[in-house]
Amino acid sequence: MHRVRPLPNYLVQRYHGWKATGYADNKAWYRRLASDGQHPRAMVISCCDSRVHVTSIFGADSGEFFIHRNIANLVPPYEPDGDHHGTSAAVEYAVRVLKVSNVIVLGHSNCGGIKGCIDMCKGHAPELEAKESFVGRWMDILRPRYDLVADMEDPEEQMRALEKEAVITSLENLMTFPWIDQVVGEGTLTLHGLWTDIGEGSLEHYNPETKSFHPV
Amino acid sequence: MHRVRPLPNYLVQRYHGWKATGYADNKAWYRRLASDGQHPRAMVISCCDSRVHVTSIFGADSGEFFIHRNIANLVPPYEPDGDHHGTSAAVEYAVRVLKVSNVIVLGHSNCGGIKGCIDMCKGHAPELEAKESFVGRWMDILRPRYDLVADMEDPEEQMRALEKEAVITSLENLMTFPWIDQVVGEGTLTLHGLWTDIGEGSLEHYNPETKSFHPV
Amino acid sequence: MHRVRPLPNYLVQRYHGWKATGYADNKAWYRRLASDGQHPRAMVISCCDSRVHVTSIFGADSGEFFIHRNIANLVPPYEPDGDHHGTSAAVEYAVRVLKVSNVIVLGHSNCGGIKGCIDMCKGHAPELEAKESFVGRWMDILRPRYDLVADMEDPEEQMRALEKEAVITSLENLMTFPWIDQVVGEGTLTLHGLWTDIGEGSLEHYNPETKSFHPV
Amino acid sequence: MHRVRPLPNYLVQRYHGWKATGYADNKAWYRRLASDGQHPRAMVISCCDSRVHVTSIFGADSGEFFIHRNIANLVPPYEPDGDHHGTSAAVEYAVRVLKVSNVIVLGHSNCGGIKGCIDMCKGHAPELEAKESFVGRWMDILRPRYDLVADMEDPEEQMRALEKEAVITSLENLMTFPWIDQVVGEGTLTLHGLWTDIGEGSLEHYNPETKSFHPV
Repeated sequence: MHRVRPLPNYLVQRYHGWKATGYADNKAWYRRLASDGQHPRAMVISCCDSRVHVTSIFGADSGEFFIHRNIANLVPPYEPDGDHHGTSAAVEYAVRVLKVSNVIVLGHSNCGGIKGCIDMCKGHAPELEAKESFVGRWMDILRPRYDLVADMEDPEEQMRALEKEAVITSLENLMTFPWIDQVVGEGTLTLHGLWTDIGEGSLEHYNPETKSFHPV
Repeated sequence: MHRVRPLPNYLVQRYHGWKATGYADNKAWYRRLASDGQHPRAMVISCCDSRVHVTSIFGADSGEFFIHRNIANLVPPYEPDGDHHGTSAAVEYAVRVLKVSNVIVLGHSNCGGIKGCIDMCKGHAPELEAKESFVGRWMDILRPRYDLVADMEDPEEQMRALEKEAVITSLENLMTFPWIDQVVGEGTLTLHGLWTDIGEGSLEHYNPETKSFHPV
Repeated sequence: MHRVRPLPNYLVQRYHGWKATGYADNKAWYRRLASDGQHPRAMVISCCDSRVHVTSIFGADSGEFFIHRNIANLVPPYEPDGDHHGTSAAVEYAVRVLKVSNVIVLGHSNCGGIKGCIDMCKGHAPELEAKESFVGRWMDILRPRYDLVADMEDPEEQMRALEKEAVITSLENLMTFPWIDQVVGEGTLTLHGLWTDIGEGSLEHYNPETKSFHPV
Repeated sequence: MHRVRPLPNYLVQRYHGWKATGYADNKAWYRRLASDGQHPRAMVISCCDSRVHVTSIFGADSGEFFIHRNIANLVPPYEPDGDHHGTSAAVEYAVRVLKVSNVIVLGHSNCGGIKGCIDMCKGHAPELEAKESFVGRWMDILRPRYDLVADMEDPEEQMRALEKEAVITSLENLMTFPWIDQVVGEGTLTLHGLWTDIGEGSLEHYNPETKSFHPV
């Protein structure tokens, strides 16, 4: 087992600071969240990237968003094969148990996972091709879309295009889940695709009819 | 495809508010994050639960934590079988690419995933037993630990015990990844298990020697 | 040369205590800081005063702040005359090499340097007038501002007013550096002036439009 | 003047956290520090580097150390020419007003200022040669010592050697101040030279008789 190490001191200090302010000032709200359970309005699927916190962009408070974060904000297609599917489990819980009104897929610029996918598709990342590469096998979800951007010569343009394809892929894969297709059809769930530029702070929204992203 | 719906107005408004304040006031920082890439110090594995945002508890700003969130903050064991493993991919990216110094598993009280696991293990949730239940199959990761809490009569006590077992399970499963075992052995990565009580705002840290949680 | 003296024992003991705890618990982080270099987000210019540690007030851990400390947190105006300018060198390194996003000038109550400046301006401290007085010549940077507070009758009010003028002087002098003026104009650097009351633990932020300090 | 920007939110939050804990828990001590003034036992001269906080290494609390931080922890020689000398002013205040018992010069590994000095001395950094380079002119203090390490072939060894020469230079320059020479002679002040390795957490103490550094 790993060695016994105390929690880093800066985290201990910050926790106690939050406890004495953020928590103490809102104790009634936290107590009610604990006793009444959560009733989030939306699920957000975003990247693990440390630079993209949806709680900042949307000023989210405790209790508002049910947030799943994985590499490159990907949703795999519906595969009820009895295996562990962490993303599908999170989506199932949000849609079927919590009955959120929106599922929002949030992509972003400068995504390391997308960069790895491009390198892999170009044959520049043999280590990601290995069966043992979890990142490589995870990015396989997006791999079929690489053809759409393969001819782009500007690397930055290509990155952005594939980052946006990742959002579209996730939206399309979400629709392969029968219980999502159903509630979307009934109008009790809407799906949204977003893409944010870290450096510019811009936000674009996907329009599935025009198949393009537009500034919010 | 899903119908075209504009982004809910409350999100549009909040985004523009953030753009004009949180982003505008820190534009230099966001630009640098975009150009220099991320250098997070720690990875946090926490639950999707809308009531538990590690960015609040630890006052984390953009760039500090690489965050993976799934149902019940679970890490499956090392299984390089060529399938999609979102959690393992996130851990791989954090440890092998970003070379974070800490991996922190953050469990919490009132966890819906843990509640479902107990119901399923007690035979009270046949829908979770179905092969098609992604939540059920995801909670299978924790299922073997149910024996440890099966005899507890107080439901709340049992919940908390299994919530903490989920943290321990994740820590132990993390150690089954050969490249985690290696860097933990070399002293360049430390693992930490935490559990927070939503209503009380308390935080407990796992001591693997005494196999118990202690207030931070 | 000075005589050989061992390091005072209380420092030896504390160092070994830190080595076995603060360092050992965060060895991975320190190793990474050494190998990857520093990427601080902000530069702080504060006083040498033993009662004001910005690392306490802002819970700063290793790697976060590039800190210059001098008497009365003063920045002299831009003077590229080929002489040694320690403060200007520190600012140059932070802004041009490290490309920090913020420069924060932190003033404080009960400042001995400011007290000396007032005494000197009132003619009560001839020793500070001497050419050989490094403290006196250093406080000359602030001297022109004394006129603004000369008429105040309450000594404490006068002290605080000049302490705040020292912060404003530093901010204005920072803007005389052409490469600061440029990046502030481009929006990649923001300057902040703060003043803290040691006894009260309060913190005030300077608003250059209203030319006044407001509680944080 | 620079634009009006609020203090970054993460600093606001951390400040309020400290106010509610670190300050609130020690209010009596802070009030006494404000009313009685500071009586630090030692002055520390260390680098601005964000990775080296003497308050961590020596577990320093408010009131203990009078800390001057500049690029490469350098002290220029005694030059009472009527100009602004920030470092000399800090030393004068510590020794003559506060009458500290120790002045400690703390050097460190991986020092960017020392790296720049070596590059400059090798002719690889013409921008540091410019009269307008404050960093270059500041490092001129150390320049005469480069000869001592010029022949070293291993760059890391050379860096460490010059980092230690910087500490020795500062100690020797301190002794050129007549009022330091006097109190050192009288035994009421001792000078110490230290060098710490960021990655290893080691600490070495300078012995002026053997002219070498030894582990603490």
